[in-house]
Amino acid sequence: MSKKFVFMFNEVEAAEKYVGNDWDKVRALLGGKGANLADMTRAELPVPPGFTVTTEACNAYLAEGEKFPPTMWEQQLEALKTIEKMTAKNFGDPTKPLLVSCRSGAKFSMPGMMDTVLNIGLNDEVAAGMVGLTGDERFVYDSYRRLVQMFGCVVMNIADEPFEEVLTEARKKAGVENDSDLKASDWKAVVVEFKKIFKERTGRDFPQDPIEQIKLATEAVFKSWNGKRAIDYRNAAKIAHDLGTGVNIVTMVFGNMGNSSATGVAMTRDGSTGEKHIEGDYLTNAQGEDVVAGIRKTKPIEELKIEMPQAYGEFDAICQKLEKHYKEMQDVEFTIEKGKLWMLQTRDGKRTAQASVRIAVDMVAEGVITKEQAVLRVTPEQVDFFLHPQFNPETKKAAIAAGNRLATGLNVSPGAAVGQVAFDADLAEKWAKEDGKKVIMVRPETKPDDVHGMLAAQGILTSRGGRTSHAALVARQFGKPAVVGVAALEINMAKREMKVGDRIIKEGDWISIDGTMGDVFIDQLDTVVPDIKDPYLIKVLGWADEARRLQVWANADYPVDAKRARDNGAQGIGLCRTEHMFFQTERLPHVQKLILAKDKETQAEALEALLPFQREDFAGLFRVMDKLPVIIRLIDPPMHEFLPGHEVLTEEITDLKIRLIKDADSLKEVNKLLHEIQAKESMLTAVESMHEANPMLGLRGVRLGLHLPGLTRMQVRAIFEAACQVAKEGIEVHPEVMIPLTSHVNELKMQQTALEEEAKKVMAEQGKNVDYKFGTMIEIPRAALTADQMAEYAQFFSFGTNDLTQTTFGISRDDAEKGFLIEYMERKILPENPFASIDEEGVGKLMDMAVKLGRGKREGLEVGICGEHGGDPKSVFFCHKIGLNYVSCSPFRIPIARLAAGQVALIEKGFKK
Amino acid sequence: MSKKFVFMFNEVEAAEKYVGNDWDKVRALLGGKGANLADMTRAELPVPPGFTVTTEACNAYLAEGEKFPPTMWEQQLEALKTIEKMTAKNFGDPTKPLLVSCRSGAKFSMPGMMDTVLNIGLNDEVAAGMVGLTGDERFVYDSYRRLVQMFGCVVMNIADEPFEEVLTEARKKAGVENDSDLKASDWKAVVVEFKKIFKERTGRDFPQDPIEQIKLATEAVFKSWNGKRAIDYRNAAKIAHDLGTGVNIVTMVFGNMGNSSATGVAMTRDGSTGEKHIEGDYLTNAQGEDVVAGIRKTKPIEELKIEMPQAYGEFDAICQKLEKHYKEMQDVEFTIEKGKLWMLQTRDGKRTAQASVRIAVDMVAEGVITKEQAVLRVTPEQVDFFLHPQFNPETKKAAIAAGNRLATGLNVSPGAAVGQVAFDADLAEKWAKEDGKKVIMVRPETKPDDVHGMLAAQGILTSRGGRTSHAALVARQFGKPAVVGVAALEINMAKREMKVGDRIIKEGDWISIDGTMGDVFIDQLDTVVPDIKDPYLIKVLGWADEARRLQVWANADYPVDAKRARDNGAQGIGLCRTEHMFFQTERLPHVQKLILAKDKETQAEALEALLPFQREDFAGLFRVMDKLPVIIRLIDPPMHEFLPGHEVLTEEITDLKIRLIKDADSLKEVNKLLHEIQAKESMLTAVESMHEANPMLGLRGVRLGLHLPGLTRMQVRAIFEAACQVAKEGIEVHPEVMIPLTSHVNELKMQQTALEEEAKKVMAEQGKNVDYKFGTMIEIPRAALTADQMAEYAQFFSFGTNDLTQTTFGISRDDAEKGFLIEYMERKILPENPFASIDEEGVGKLMDMAVKLGRGKREGLEVGICGEHGGDPKSVFFCHKIGLNYVSCSPFRIPIARLAAGQVALIEKGFKK
Repeated sequence: MSKKFVFMFNEVEAAEKYVGNDWDKVRALLGGKGANLADMTRAELPVPPGFTVTTEACNAYLAEGEKFPPTMWEQQLEALKTIEKMTAKNFGDPTKPLLVSCRSGAKFSMPGMMDTVLNIGLNDEVAAGMVGLTGDERFVYDSYRRLVQMFGCVVMNIADEPFEEVLTEARKKAGVENDSDLKASDWKAVVVEFKKIFKERTGRDFPQDPIEQIKLATEAVFKSWNGKRAIDYRNAAKIAHDLGTGVNIVTMVFGNMGNSSATGVAMTRDGSTGEKHIEGDYLTNAQGEDVVAGIRKTKPIEELKIEMPQAYGEFDAICQKLEKHYKEMQDVEFTIEKGKLWMLQTRDGKRTAQASVRIAVDMVAEGVITKEQAVLRVTPEQVDFFLHPQFNPETKKAAIAAGNRLATGLNVSPGAAVGQVAFDADLAEKWAKEDGKKVIMVRPETKPDDVHGMLAAQGILTSRGGRTSHAALVARQFGKPAVVGVAALEINMAKREMKVGDRIIKEGDWISIDGTMGDVFIDQLDTVVPDIKDPYLIKVLGWADEARRLQVWANADYPVDAKRARDNGAQGIGLCRTEHMFFQTERLPHVQKLILAKDKETQAEALEALLPFQREDFAGLFRVMDKLPVIIRLIDPPMHEFLPGHEVLTEEITDLKIRLIKDADSLKEVNKLLHEIQAKESMLTAVESMHEANPMLGLRGVRLGLHLPGLTRMQVRAIFEAACQVAKEGIEVHPEVMIPLTSHVNELKMQQTALEEEAKKVMAEQGKNVDYKFGTMIEIPRAALTADQMAEYAQFFSFGTNDLTQTTFGISRDDAEKGFLIEYMERKILPENPFASIDEEGVGKLMDMAVKLGRGKREGLEVGICGEHGGDPKSVFFCHKIGLNYVSCSPFRIPIARLAAGQVALIEKGFKK
Repeated sequence: MSKKFVFMFNEVEAAEKYVGNDWDKVRALLGGKGANLADMTRAELPVPPGFTVTTEACNAYLAEGEKFPPTMWEQQLEALKTIEKMTAKNFGDPTKPLLVSCRSGAKFSMPGMMDTVLNIGLNDEVAAGMVGLTGDERFVYDSYRRLVQMFGCVVMNIADEPFEEVLTEARKKAGVENDSDLKASDWKAVVVEFKKIFKERTGRDFPQDPIEQIKLATEAVFKSWNGKRAIDYRNAAKIAHDLGTGVNIVTMVFGNMGNSSATGVAMTRDGSTGEKHIEGDYLTNAQGEDVVAGIRKTKPIEELKIEMPQAYGEFDAICQKLEKHYKEMQDVEFTIEKGKLWMLQTRDGKRTAQASVRIAVDMVAEGVITKEQAVLRVTPEQVDFFLHPQFNPETKKAAIAAGNRLATGLNVSPGAAVGQVAFDADLAEKWAKEDGKKVIMVRPETKPDDVHGMLAAQGILTSRGGRTSHAALVARQFGKPAVVGVAALEINMAKREMKVGDRIIKEGDWISIDGTMGDVFIDQLDTVVPDIKDPYLIKVLGWADEARRLQVWANADYPVDAKRARDNGAQGIGLCRTEHMFFQTERLPHVQKLILAKDKETQAEALEALLPFQREDFAGLFRVMDKLPVIIRLIDPPMHEFLPGHEVLTEEITDLKIRLIKDADSLKEVNKLLHEIQAKESMLTAVESMHEANPMLGLRGVRLGLHLPGLTRMQVRAIFEAACQVAKEGIEVHPEVMIPLTSHVNELKMQQTALEEEAKKVMAEQGKNVDYKFGTMIEIPRAALTADQMAEYAQFFSFGTNDLTQTTFGISRDDAEKGFLIEYMERKILPENPFASIDEEGVGKLMDMAVKLGRGKREGLEVGICGEHGGDPKSVFFCHKIGLNYVSCSPFRIPIARLAAGQVALIEKGFKK
């Protein structure tokens, strides 16, 4: 039996059977549009008769050197006959003519492919017949001229311009402004001219045989799958190239048959806010393309309710039915032909993050989906949306309505940015830094040399490149909103301007870019920060909390951060970086005194001065985190970070010496300057003696704790004095002391032993015992490799995946993220930035080993992660899988981590969205 | 039955049975001295009757609060009775008096414990009796005064001085210079004075009861195990503290009973050269302590042959017998009492590295030991000896004979050093750097602040510290000869002088230190470099070669190094560092041009200029390494290493600008200076743009190869052009191209694919195919963790353990080895320097994983090591165990690696030394 390449819309069960009852595969076979038309037909919705030629046919056609596969055309002819029977009309029959549209439809919605050819089946004879049947000569020749132009441009690749010139000439001749004012006779003349153009450009007459029209249109759809724009788009959007497109042949219904006819598009809910009401636009007496072309002013869907109440009622019921069926907000196209409603398309509707969250929650309330489905439907990126400034939805709608949306490209880095256009990196940097301007850097594409400009800019816009282009990678890296690959944008570096069509933007002009949606606007749009306290978001996160096994803790150094973290749902502090406290103005002198101390006494003095500060820092944290664990990391960075830089000091000394020579005019002044010079020089000596070739791998972390034992002892004293004091206030404290950068168990053993002794001493002094733990970071490969030994001492592990990634890869993050790492991602050497998402094969392998080794030695060992990966959804999934107890991330990212942790738990249990 | 604490010398079988027939355990039980005395007794050698109180008794005594364990003393009394029976003499019996010596003896020879008390059993009554029996009053009272002094000092802890004062007074009174000129009456008077001192200092009379003498002496030996000096020594020499010492009670025989009596020490072979002849010294009519005290001039052993031919003949035969029995050169003590030879001790003799090697080889020829034993007996340290300057053995002997050996300490870092004494680091550095002096830095102990002086010095000497002291660690780290822990040395920093006894050395005086043996000499000794072509060494290495499974390759960059490596036995080049070639004067400008190039053309020009140089480099290597593999590593270091430093450039620019302002007096001159400034400034910009915070983890290795693809392509072209050219000369070439610093398989894949293409292109051009491999270094943890992926492309792995250790530990070697790593070893946080010996638990675990993963994917994958660890014996052992194919090391260390590789293979097969 020959393969089935054609499915009628009413053969959806056959299609399901053909692929083995998997709706996803039906969509792959018929394309999204065809599958949904078939599905609506099954649901007895009013879909015009039609059929789909499968994606398999397309792939076979392309594979066989642009030849239809055996029997495909015969099946298609058979299907056309069936349509004739169903409609009681016939192709090319002037007495009962059958017209159809031909539309492409792949599994994923995809610009760049052949769109639509309407009115197929019209020819000279049929047109004449239709005039008789409808009595509407204008309608018939308007339809005919549309067919010739669409067929010419879309199927035969003729340029638009000659057709447009004819229309311009026609309007001039008739003395009218708009096409709608042209008469039947004008259109009739246009058709003649159009057919001449067709002949000139293609060397053949416009095909009068409807069957030949269909055949050519089908081939054109197939070929468009491999068109340059389609391939570019698939590359950018990471869509596989072997999916192929389906071809949908649908009986024409006419919205342009007078005032009881209409055509429109609608969404079943508000795409901006998610509110539950139908939103859309329509035109009376028009064909579909008129609605989207924006030539005529459309009417809001509410008016249809008044204008055609019965049709609207039917439409509203269908919308509800579709939503229940697809369990998703739908985006539909419809036509009303002389009062009769027809559905021409339905698909999942695009929406903002806010709308997405609200719709998911509402649908749970409506009983359409389950809580688990709602959790799985909201994406971490949508939660991320709530953290960045976005354009005010109203302003944005207005801008679109005013035609100020210049173009749309790839939404590669979320957020809204407003600024003046600068066409090179140096200028962008100069304007931003020296002139305090807000800049959008615009380039055809970016290169490593451009990074300084990109960092100075508010946002980045390029005309070329895809999701992994240099511009996209750098933008995401540094959180800059970006839109790339805006093909419509022509940049003229010589003229320092860019244009889209005939709209010109000069350097210095204001634009606004929406990295979340990929839109580029003229002018300055308002921005707002969405509300993280959105009640719908809170609801979804609550459901995620019910599902998740992984706890979510926060990285927070100050009480104010801890408070925010707790408000956002943190269940503990996973990382408090104590050294941040040392940089504060009133403390730094003591820290420097400690570093420069030549004897134990001076050291002890400095430490004593620092103790009360640290104690208060910790007391504040403990109060906020009542009943929850607080992990405090002992000092980590190298000491020289607390001293001025070498160059700064050298310059200061030179300046002082010049002043001494030139300006000092009293002995007192001379002495004062000499004293200052001496102090700076002794500081310089200290800085020089602390210089390290590779400070990342130097004297820091536990190494420093062992080298300067008084410092960490002071920190532990501060922690336990604070803990006891706060505990006496009636607050429940759970301090956990974390020793950083261990690589050998002896480091941990020696440091922990000494510090635990100090802790016990403090508790004895205070006459109060508190619950505590001592543990270590696992951030050096050797610590992971010997985690069984580490677990003999450590009561908890916390993965420091920033450092662990640096050492496992042998990459210095600060250097690489502005340099070769970007190049690596552009060239696909690395699939993604390992500092953004955990490298599961390498770093992850070490983490997995460490968890197993650690728990093998100490059952129930508490293990978490406090690197920045803790707020990355993909990494959260991984942490769940290797059995961590918690992820710890920035207070802002807690909602994202909560959602991701819930999702992975649900997926593990087999839930689907 | 009660425990056996005492073994007669003729009860060796009982001792063996007691410990389960393990000679090592017999030595542990009886101590080395006791075990060998018993062993000689069994061999029917003339050993005076005696017994050993076991180390178990000592441990029990110390454990029980200095109380003899039950029945021990009774057993000892029983043993004394047995001696009385065997000798037909009795303790305290003036008519047939029995005298004994009491000597300590632990498993390992150990200074710091109680040495020897001779003549135990003498008292007033016995002395009087002995005079009657021997008719030699002088001998008797000389013996008696020795007992009182030795017993007083050694057993009762009286200081030496009061006794010495009495002797000085006695000599003065008698008007003689030497003790040997004192008469019987003088000694009789001395005994009276000595007994007075004894009474004064101890509050009791000198014990007249011989049994009490023995009891007190036994206790004194036990207690000395825990004396401060003994504990210090054990700490320094890494000897366990729970071994305990044995006590040997031996019947006295007298070398001081007239001219048919003598006493001496000898070695069965020459301890310096290893030649086979007895070497030793003796004194006629003397007691043992006279020989070692150096007061009387000893006679060479050859004279004994003439003086007492019969005794000598017997002695010679015994020496041969002992050697055959112990299969080792022996160090013996003997006494001839009235013509009768007695053996008092035998132990393995100390010898130089040269002697050790020769003796092992000779003993194989003599059929005493097997080749395998010879290989296992020579230590890698002894082979290392052949690589460093040593003192000329003749000069050294002469210096010792002349009494110029000032003192002996711990031999912590091998080699000979001669220099002027400097007592602080700053002076040492100043003298060495500014004044070009050779310096020995001398300190009580060293600290991190002293490192700059230590690095500037020829050698290091300290009075305190052990094998893991700061001084020892730094010295070994940087290959500086060092002697530490010279307790006899008193350093007076205030006077800037040091003294040993009454010999004073002032700052600036010359001394010589022997880090191999631990000796310190006054004056400048000659040094020589031992001959690595020593025929005995070559023999041993040949036997090691027969045994080993592991190949030994060399790290060599130039043909001259390759030649030396091949001469030393290298079986391939494991690492040729191509970038070294770039630093040569005529090449560096091209390299800089390449780095600074703004366009592809300039880059291509620079690469073209470098190509012929590289080609010649490789051609030379291939010629030398005919038939052997040559691994060439593509460029590794960051590019900025080829440019001048930031500070240098800044200074040069400032200078040029000053010249421009002050000196330029013609337009031509101004233009010239401006041009120079511009060039330097553009260089400075390049340097600044290449700055990296952590260059070790930066743009280097394969990252550079991918970033500047032309560079590695040029290198591969040079390799294959050279290979084809040399192959055409009839030489067999096996180039292996090594890609450094990979961390992700895609790096390797992309680089290797491009380069292999270039290689094939060159071979096609040249019309010649050569055997080649492409492979990668494994020097980043991630490469090891994903070695299975790497092996899909790499045809060989080479572990770069320097970098792998840096990244696995997160330690920057250059910074750490002068800093906290030394502190870590001092404080025993790290058991050893992981850059010297592979850290088996961490780095080694990764290596083992990588070998298994790599070979799991590619059977028979060639795996080696080219880090400096390849020349470290312990690391060689490890490399053998994890199944590497070869170790590659510096040409100089090849003999050490060959020996170690042979040893580990033999040990694996169960051979013992």
